[in-house]
Amino acid sequence: MQFGSEPKIWDKRRRLKKERLSRLKQNGKVIPTENIVAALEAVIEPGNKVVLEGNNQKQADFLARSLCELNPDKVHDLHMIIPSMSLPEHLDVFEKGIARKLDFSYSGAQSLRTSQLLEDGALEIGAVHTYIELYSRLYVDLIPDVVLVAAYAADREGNLYTGPSTEDTPALLEAAAFHDGIVIAQVNEIVDDPKDLRRVDIPGSWVDLIVKSDKPFFIEPLFTRDPRQIKNQHVLMGMMALKGIYGRHMVQSLNHGIGFNTAAIELLLPTYGEELGLRGKICKNWCLNPHPTLIPAIESGWVESVHSFGGELGMEKYMAARPDVFFTGADGSMRSNRAFCQMAGQYAADMFIGSTLQIDAEGNSSTVTKGRLSGFGGAPNMGHDPHGRRHATKAWLDMIKEPSPTARGHKLVVQMVETFQAKAKPTFVENLEAVQVAKDAGMPLAPIMIYADDVTHLLTEDGIAYLYMADSMEERKKMIAAVAGITDIGLRANPKDVEKLRQSGKVAFPSDLGIDKSRATRSMLAAKSIADLVEWSGGLYEPPAKFRSW
Amino acid sequence: MQFGSEPKIWDKRRRLKKERLSRLKQNGKVIPTENIVAALEAVIEPGNKVVLEGNNQKQADFLARSLCELNPDKVHDLHMIIPSMSLPEHLDVFEKGIARKLDFSYSGAQSLRTSQLLEDGALEIGAVHTYIELYSRLYVDLIPDVVLVAAYAADREGNLYTGPSTEDTPALLEAAAFHDGIVIAQVNEIVDDPKDLRRVDIPGSWVDLIVKSDKPFFIEPLFTRDPRQIKNQHVLMGMMALKGIYGRHMVQSLNHGIGFNTAAIELLLPTYGEELGLRGKICKNWCLNPHPTLIPAIESGWVESVHSFGGELGMEKYMAARPDVFFTGADGSMRSNRAFCQMAGQYAADMFIGSTLQIDAEGNSSTVTKGRLSGFGGAPNMGHDPHGRRHATKAWLDMIKEPSPTARGHKLVVQMVETFQAKAKPTFVENLEAVQVAKDAGMPLAPIMIYADDVTHLLTEDGIAYLYMADSMEERKKMIAAVAGITDIGLRANPKDVEKLRQSGKVAFPSDLGIDKSRATRSMLAAKSIADLVEWSGGLYEPPAKFRSW
Repeated sequence: MQFGSEPKIWDKRRRLKKERLSRLKQNGKVIPTENIVAALEAVIEPGNKVVLEGNNQKQADFLARSLCELNPDKVHDLHMIIPSMSLPEHLDVFEKGIARKLDFSYSGAQSLRTSQLLEDGALEIGAVHTYIELYSRLYVDLIPDVVLVAAYAADREGNLYTGPSTEDTPALLEAAAFHDGIVIAQVNEIVDDPKDLRRVDIPGSWVDLIVKSDKPFFIEPLFTRDPRQIKNQHVLMGMMALKGIYGRHMVQSLNHGIGFNTAAIELLLPTYGEELGLRGKICKNWCLNPHPTLIPAIESGWVESVHSFGGELGMEKYMAARPDVFFTGADGSMRSNRAFCQMAGQYAADMFIGSTLQIDAEGNSSTVTKGRLSGFGGAPNMGHDPHGRRHATKAWLDMIKEPSPTARGHKLVVQMVETFQAKAKPTFVENLEAVQVAKDAGMPLAPIMIYADDVTHLLTEDGIAYLYMADSMEERKKMIAAVAGITDIGLRANPKDVEKLRQSGKVAFPSDLGIDKSRATRSMLAAKSIADLVEWSGGLYEPPAKFRSW
Repeated sequence: MQFGSEPKIWDKRRRLKKERLSRLKQNGKVIPTENIVAALEAVIEPGNKVVLEGNNQKQADFLARSLCELNPDKVHDLHMIIPSMSLPEHLDVFEKGIARKLDFSYSGAQSLRTSQLLEDGALEIGAVHTYIELYSRLYVDLIPDVVLVAAYAADREGNLYTGPSTEDTPALLEAAAFHDGIVIAQVNEIVDDPKDLRRVDIPGSWVDLIVKSDKPFFIEPLFTRDPRQIKNQHVLMGMMALKGIYGRHMVQSLNHGIGFNTAAIELLLPTYGEELGLRGKICKNWCLNPHPTLIPAIESGWVESVHSFGGELGMEKYMAARPDVFFTGADGSMRSNRAFCQMAGQYAADMFIGSTLQIDAEGNSSTVTKGRLSGFGGAPNMGHDPHGRRHATKAWLDMIKEPSPTARGHKLVVQMVETFQAKAKPTFVENLEAVQVAKDAGMPLAPIMIYADDVTHLLTEDGIAYLYMADSMEERKKMIAAVAGITDIGLRANPKDVEKLRQSGKVAFPSDLGIDKSRATRSMLAAKSIADLVEWSGGLYEPPAKFRSW
C-alpha cells in the first residue's frame, strides 16, 4: 500500500539535533561564557532558521553579539526570525554575510538601516508580520532549527526564570523545544540549587543549553512617557476621548498604544474622568504594558486588572506591590506574556486606541514612511475587529449600525492623531508612503498598519469622527476630512457637509461634546512629571536614570 | 495627592488564597484522593469563578464529579467557566444548586440539556465563546479564582506531565497561577522522584494542589472518522475540493474541520491528489488534531508538519514515531497546545475548510439548531479572515478581487456541505434556527458560527461557488442558490443565471472542473476502513475498541 520502497526516516530533526549537541563535547547544559562563539558555530548550520529573541523590551543581546562573531565561511545564509529588530547586531549579522533572509515584526530603532540593507541587497525579507502572526508561523511553516532567548536566571537543569519580562520567550521557545530544535538561553545568573530560582517560567526539559552572559541583558523602558512632554493639545484630545468615546460607549476593557496622547488619557482618569463620574464604570480591565502613567489611575481605584505584554524597567517593585492589579507569580514578581496578552487584547478587549504617522483619505494608516521599514509590532493584532469574537458588551454592540438578526458587534478601533506630525508633516495624506515603499521593496502589498474598514473612530485636535456611523465610503471620506485640520485632506471639507455631519452626530467638535477648550491645560493632569508619578506610587516606582530630571 | 484616606489593601487575592489553602491543614501539595470533596469545600467559596477543564478530548472528570458532591449550603452560586461541556457532571453542578452562571465555548454532547436547563432557569449564561476568546477573557474580565485541570502525572512538587493531550491546560492554568488563583490538578499518577516524570509541561510552582484521581481521566477519540462511513458523494466533493480549491489556489497551510467530507479529502491526497501532481505542492503544513485519516497522506510524503490542538486516542505511538511531522517533546511523546494551535490556525493557515448544519441565503452558517445550544468551539477562530495577518501567500493573495494599493488578501474560508442533512433536513434555509434560539434564550445576538462576509467558497455535491468573486450581495445569493440543490433556496436559482455564473467561472460544476463523476467512488480512497489505516501506519496506530470492527 505504500508508495516508494525505501524505508523513510521520520526523525531526521531529532537525529540532527543529537548530532549537533554532541559536537559540543561538554557535560551538562552550561556553555562556559567564553565558549559561546564556538558553541554556536558547532550547533548552527548554514541555512538554518534561527529565532533570536529581539523583544520589545528584553533583548538576548549577548547571543546577538556572539552570533555576529561566527565565521561566515562556516555559518552563512541563516534565515533569521526576530520579533523586534532593536539592536544594531540584528542587522550586523546580515552585513557580515552570516544571515541572508529575515522575517520580523517590528524594527523601530533599526527601521532606517533595515531599509538600506534591503536596498543594497544585503538582506532578503520573507515577510513583515504582526507579533502573533509571527509566533503562529513558528508552529506551521517557519518551524525553527535554533531558538536563542534571554532569561534572568537558570539552574543547571535549564529551568528558567524569565520574571517580569517573560514577554515572547515561551511562544518562541515552545516551537523548537517540541519540534527537535535547539534552545539556547542566555541568563544573567546561573544558580546551583534549583530552589534558588525565584520560580520556574520555563521547564528545564524545554531548554538544551544555557550560558551566563557577559553582562545582564539589555532591557529598554519603551513604554515610559514623561508627563512633562504632554501638551495642552494632548489634554484636549484626551478629554474628548474620555467624554466622546470611553464614556459614551462605556468601554470596560481596553488596550492603549504607546504615545503622549494615550498617556494623557491615563493621567486624566483621576481628574476629568472622576469629574465625569466614570470611575468604576469604565476602563476596568486592561491589556497593557505597565505604563508608569497609569499609576495615578491605579492608586485612585480605577483599575481592576492589567495583563501585560512585557515588563517595564523601574516598575518592578510597584507591580510586585499591587498583585490584585498586575499578574504576578507565586514568588511575588510580575509575569508578562506577549502571546497571551496579544490574544487577550484581540479577543477580550472592547477597544484599541493608538496613534499612527499617516492616514489616507479613506482611513487606512501606516507607520511605515519613506526609507523606514518600521514594521507592525502588535498594533494590527489589537487594532482590528476580530471576527472570531462572539461575546457581547455594550461597547461592542454599540458599533452595530443596522440591527439585523445576523448582525454582529465590532471592536472599537480608535485612531488618535494630531493633524500634523513634527516638522509640519501632515498626518493626513493623499497616498500613504507605505504604498511606494512596497513598490520599491518589491513587497506584494503595502505595509498598512490598520485598514480603513477596521477603524471605528478617528480623533484629532479638531474633533471626533464616528466612522462606524458612515453610510458610505463617500460619507466616510467627508467625516475624515471634517477632522483633518488644515491638511490638504482637511481643506477639502465642505463647511456645509461638516455642519450636517455635526448635526447628525457623526462628527463632534469639542463644543458639541460640551467640552470647554479653555480647561484643556496641563493642570488637568493627575501627574505632571516623573517625580509626581514616583510620589503617586509611594516611592515604589523607580524610574530609570534617563527619566530622572529632578 | 491620593483620593480617599484609608490605606488600601492591594493583595486581597493573595491573602485570601493563603487563608483558603491554610484551611486544608495539610503538608505539601498532595490531597489524598478520598479527601477531595472536603478539600474543594475548603478552598472554593460561594460566587467564585471556577474554571473546569472540560476539554475537547481530555476531561478533568474526577474533579467534575467531586464538585457535584459539594454541599450547596456551603458552596453555591459558582460561576463556571468550561471550554467544552462534555460530561453530564458539567450540568449536574447547576441542577444541584452549586453553580449558577456559565461561560463556555462548546457543548456538543450536552447541547440539548444545556438548552433545557437554560429554559428551566437553572442556569444563567454569561456568553458562548470561541476557544481563544474564552481563554482571553481569563486574563481580562473573567479572571478565575480556582482552576481545575487534568494531567497524566505529577511529582510531589506539582510539576505536571500533560503529554499528548496538553490541550487547554496551560492557557487555563496560567490565568490563576499568575493572579493568586488556586490551581488544582487531578492526575492519573503521582511519582515520588521528579526524574520519573517523562517531562515537565507545567512547572510545579504554578500548581497549588494535586490529587490522584480514582481512575484515569476520560479522553474521547473525538476526531477519529471510520473510512467505512465515507460515501461516494463525499468522494465527489473531495475531488472537487482538491481540484477546484486546493490545487487552484495552491493551498500550503490549512486546517480541516471534523467530518466525513474532510476525512475523504485526507484519504484522496495519496490517490487523486497524486494523480493531479500536487504532492509537495499543496497541503504541506497543517494545524490539525491527529486525524487517523491523515496517516496515508503522511506515509506518502504529503505532509511536512502537523501542529495539534489536542491528542487523539490511539495515535500516541504513531505520533511518537513520526517526530519530523508531529510536535513532540524531549521525552518523545507528543505535545499539543490548543491555544497556540488556534492562534496558528488563525494567523498562519491559508485555509479553513469545514462543515456546518445550516446556511442561510446570504451565507451565514450555524450549528446551533432548535433546542441545541451547541456553542462554537474553535471553528470561528479558524473560519474567519484574520485582519491582523500581513504575510502574503499565493492562496491568500488569490482572494483579492480588485487590485489596489491598499488591498489585502483574505483567508480561504470554505464551507463544505451536502445540500441535505440526515432525515432530509435541508442545509440551506431561509432563516437560521440560531436566530430563534437567540430570541428564546434572550441572547443579544444570534449564535452564528461563521459569518457570510468571511466565507470565500461554498462547496456542495452540486459544485463550488467561488463567493469571493461575487460582485454584490445579489450575485452572492445567486451563487449560493446555484449549488444549493433542491432545497427551497436552491430551487430559486434561475437556470440562465446559473449558466452565466458557470461561464464566468464564479460557479463550477464537476464537469466544469473536468471531473468525471463516475470515478467518484469509494475505490478512490487510500484507506477504506480503520484496519487499512492501521496497516498504513505499520501497526503503530492503535484504534480504540469501538473502532475495531475486524
